[in-house]
Amino acid sequence: MSDSVYLEDLAVGQTFSNGPVELTAEAIKAFATQFDPQPFHMDEKAAEASFFKELAASGWHTAALTMRLLVTGGPRLAWGHIGAGGEVRWPRPAYAGDWLTLHGEIIEIAPSRSKPDRGIVRVRLVTRNQRDELVQELVARVLVPRRPASP
Amino acid sequence: MSDSVYLEDLAVGQTFSNGPVELTAEAIKAFATQFDPQPFHMDEKAAEASFFKELAASGWHTAALTMRLLVTGGPRLAWGHIGAGGEVRWPRPAYAGDWLTLHGEIIEIAPSRSKPDRGIVRVRLVTRNQRDELVQELVARVLVPRRPASP
Repeated sequence: MSDSVYLEDLAVGQTFSNGPVELTAEAIKAFATQFDPQPFHMDEKAAEASFFKELAASGWHTAALTMRLLVTGGPRLAWGHIGAGGEVRWPRPAYAGDWLTLHGEIIEIAPSRSKPDRGIVRVRLVTRNQRDELVQELVARVLVPRRPASP
Repeated sequence: MSDSVYLEDLAVGQTFSNGPVELTAEAIKAFATQFDPQPFHMDEKAAEASFFKELAASGWHTAALTMRLLVTGGPRLAWGHIGAGGEVRWPRPAYAGDWLTLHGEIIEIAPSRSKPDRGIVRVRLVTRNQRDELVQELVARVLVPRRPASP
């Protein structure tokens, strides 16, 4: 796609994909040490004794990797990918050694009622592991500018 | 609180707080380089020319820092903080030099209908900057075990 995608260039049902990207044990531990310092995200032995049974990534790590896949493989929006929020769920953990793939689909395009220069696009971002199992579903609201009028 | 908080130990309306924690320009750039490589999260000049006008953190960075504040300052749940998902919104960005504080409140406690050993707790996690402005609101669903029956 072009480098300046505006609201008018998007269509409901439009899809994109990116990945896979590897989730290493080292990356899981590094993320968790900084942002989610719970033993089952930082140590294999502690993970075995936990709810997870093996080293699992913080859900926020899965979300952050998904963002990387979106930014590097999604539509090249004119303002960039600026999220207003969304609904996230993690039906199963992502584990050390998993390879994650993103599939995105635009599900709604709504011009703003109060701000004529932009709209909100709802996009479903599905992150799966190498066994095609869902590790994250995110329905995100993204700010997208309308195409400026010609001068 | 004790080190092993079970579902029965929690109450709707219970609150907790943690922070503030500083959001530095270096941390914003490091997170973005790894997970949200957009110029306005990695470079002050690019940020000035962007929607944000100054160096702003990725929303996922704000979420990750919020998780750190929850894990280090929230209830010490018996299984740890294991999120099933949630709804997040970012009404305004967090900027370089901001100091972020977390306020949490338990808003719902629901024993699982299918799994008698656990329940789902809904918690509202509000992240504010040093001007008391809301930078993130997250309503998270957290898996919490029920207290095991005495032997």
